[in-house]
Amino acid sequence: MVPHLLTALKGPLLDLERRFLEATPQIERWLRLEWQEHTPPFYCSVDIRNAGFKLAPVDTDLFPGDFDNLSDSTLPLAVQAAMAAIEKYCPDARNLLLIPESRPRGPRYFVNVQRLAAILRQTGLNVRFGSLDPDLTAPRPVVLPDGASLLLEPLRRHGRRVGLVDFDPCSVLLNTDLSAGQPAVLTDLTEQVLLPPLHAGWAVRRRSQHLASYKEVAKRFSKMLDIDPWLIDPLFIACAAPDWHSRDGEDSLATSVDQLLRQMRSRYREYGVQATPFVVLKADRGTGGLDSLAVRDAAELRGLLRRGRAPVPLNRQEPLGHELVLQEGVPSVETVDQGVADPVVYLIDRYVVGGFYRVHSGVRGAPGTDPTPGAPGTQFLPLPFATSCNLPDRTADPDMAQNRFYAYGVVARLAMLAASLELERTDPDQSLYG
Amino acid sequence: MVPHLLTALKGPLLDLERRFLEATPQIERWLRLEWQEHTPPFYCSVDIRNAGFKLAPVDTDLFPGDFDNLSDSTLPLAVQAAMAAIEKYCPDARNLLLIPESRPRGPRYFVNVQRLAAILRQTGLNVRFGSLDPDLTAPRPVVLPDGASLLLEPLRRHGRRVGLVDFDPCSVLLNTDLSAGQPAVLTDLTEQVLLPPLHAGWAVRRRSQHLASYKEVAKRFSKMLDIDPWLIDPLFIACAAPDWHSRDGEDSLATSVDQLLRQMRSRYREYGVQATPFVVLKADRGTGGLDSLAVRDAAELRGLLRRGRAPVPLNRQEPLGHELVLQEGVPSVETVDQGVADPVVYLIDRYVVGGFYRVHSGVRGAPGTDPTPGAPGTQFLPLPFATSCNLPDRTADPDMAQNRFYAYGVVARLAMLAASLELERTDPDQSLYG
Repeated sequence: MVPHLLTALKGPLLDLERRFLEATPQIERWLRLEWQEHTPPFYCSVDIRNAGFKLAPVDTDLFPGDFDNLSDSTLPLAVQAAMAAIEKYCPDARNLLLIPESRPRGPRYFVNVQRLAAILRQTGLNVRFGSLDPDLTAPRPVVLPDGASLLLEPLRRHGRRVGLVDFDPCSVLLNTDLSAGQPAVLTDLTEQVLLPPLHAGWAVRRRSQHLASYKEVAKRFSKMLDIDPWLIDPLFIACAAPDWHSRDGEDSLATSVDQLLRQMRSRYREYGVQATPFVVLKADRGTGGLDSLAVRDAAELRGLLRRGRAPVPLNRQEPLGHELVLQEGVPSVETVDQGVADPVVYLIDRYVVGGFYRVHSGVRGAPGTDPTPGAPGTQFLPLPFATSCNLPDRTADPDMAQNRFYAYGVVARLAMLAASLELERTDPDQSLYG
Repeated sequence: MVPHLLTALKGPLLDLERRFLEATPQIERWLRLEWQEHTPPFYCSVDIRNAGFKLAPVDTDLFPGDFDNLSDSTLPLAVQAAMAAIEKYCPDARNLLLIPESRPRGPRYFVNVQRLAAILRQTGLNVRFGSLDPDLTAPRPVVLPDGASLLLEPLRRHGRRVGLVDFDPCSVLLNTDLSAGQPAVLTDLTEQVLLPPLHAGWAVRRRSQHLASYKEVAKRFSKMLDIDPWLIDPLFIACAAPDWHSRDGEDSLATSVDQLLRQMRSRYREYGVQATPFVVLKADRGTGGLDSLAVRDAAELRGLLRRGRAPVPLNRQEPLGHELVLQEGVPSVETVDQGVADPVVYLIDRYVVGGFYRVHSGVRGAPGTDPTPGAPGTQFLPLPFATSCNLPDRTADPDMAQNRFYAYGVVARLAMLAASLELERTDPDQSLYG
């Protein structure tokens, strides 16, 4: 890979990026006012697609698991942002319990956990690791590639608190998306701060709710900026999943796919976009046991279903999803060495702290190769952003990386704001938002 | 100068720096709790001396004027910190009026102003510049070395607000220390946020009050860390200035100098320090029309006074000071190319955002050459810190720059905390602190 790559997309800023750059003072003030009304989740990562004609978030992860992919140079920003977050949630915190995935995605997952813990320790916290794995009954070290190790310990419940045998934390930070359900050991923790809250996990969360909140945020933001919200917001339709074996319900799904494609074609005509529209099918809840799948038309969907090629159940302990989201596919114009480079932006509290590109071998924007992390047949290489996302320079060349990254940081913050609205609306305790 | 210098002090961490590094979680939590009780000034810069046997702040500037000396790489931290500050003081702010020095220290001063404005603009503020110069009756551009320019405009008072003819700011940021007195145009601005408050200016502020607050902070911090407070706190005595012409009061001053030197010698013996102690004379209020002056004993002071060599009235519109502070001189062990390198740390809100070395030709720690900015006969070259101050690495070599800078950031934050206490205690409206 290119070691000193600044941005995967060279050349002048696209119209929308230029618009963001010009409107920086309005955008920053608008966001500042929004954060007076809404509390951001503790952290999140946002997958972005830059199609040239539109720039949009396509996935918002409330349990980001790739902190190890951030550039070292952006870590001070992460520490400063984490300080602000901890001060807000638990200013006198001394101990923090970090709960990682019990079924990690890959061997590097715990390098992410180590990095996250290093950031948190620098805010003045003692950090230890509690495991949700019921088979873990005694402390077990996990050896990391660099030779360091990290001790996973069994969780201990004490009344309305959770901790370790000799560790009573004030705050508990989840780095697991709880797609297998809400563990009893984490419910009713009324005496501790659980970050993010339990209902941020996929046991409760629905992608369609996030996308609906994002639509609302995008609409208000676009009104302020006097742009068409479609430029930052992918169209979507929530619909029932067919029975993947009997193919019952396939017709209804095909109708929804056609409906979404018609909407897209109308927009493409309006903006003179020459690309072939495609739709991405995702589970409404987590992965829903499915890979996401891109199709160009209903016939392609029917063909794939007929050949039994999709969706492929993943090796996860999740029930198959009964609900789907059909999302407008946003092709990616960023490439590195002929690989597609999709930006991922990391946020802690309301601050953009860094990002990286996921570089993969899929053909850009082509159906069947939607760059979903972990999709089979693609390889993901991280490429950290070399500059910060919060320092555009209107006097510099418009294709400077920091100007491009500023636009990515804005869109990522809109997605985080949508997550805030989503979490408010799905909070089981609605008395907090009177 | 060395372009890629990481730290001016090579070699292993000194005992105190190592102690800070080990105690990072306790230190960060202690500071976090202090900031729950006290509000930091909007910004400040802290002059640090690393003597090897002690590490202490020697001056805390509440109107820092060298933002242009910070490394570009630390600017994102400054933006993020300024965002946090603005959110606190005036979350819906749209316009900010920056009031620079009307008698700048040198031609680069407005480059500092430009940099500061760039940081503030990135938080979503429109920034314009109002001048306290009564002779400025129409807008006047100031051309900067890079060819850019900056427009100084006459202040306009409207009832309890100040602004420009077509600019009504929510916040007013002072970058002038008001050593010439409190301008009427800035008093009773009850409808705006004035940052820092008017009583932070030298018309009200007294160095001895800051040092007394710092002593208290250092005592509490040292108790928490189980260290001798002297290791981070220079001794001082407040006393009356002699009549510089008739030399009336010289005896009393000489007695105080001897008294402070006796205290220092006792400490030097206790710690086995071989250096010759020296005392620095400073005005209690601003520069007080005086240069600061270092002497090794009362005889040296008498000799200098007799020969009329000191203190030299500066070309300032300030009355000569009637009160002095005698401060324990802290020699500097950091050098670059045989010049003495004194660290300066910059803070915005409660965050360390960067720093630089002031490199000068004075002999380190020697009387008569105390490295006060602007002292005659020395040349100051800035050398930005190459790494952040908030990311020590306990697993790395102890002499890594980021580990050394962490200690500097801690001491700087203690000085900022002292400034918070000082501003609370000297606030004319004590009802705020009931």
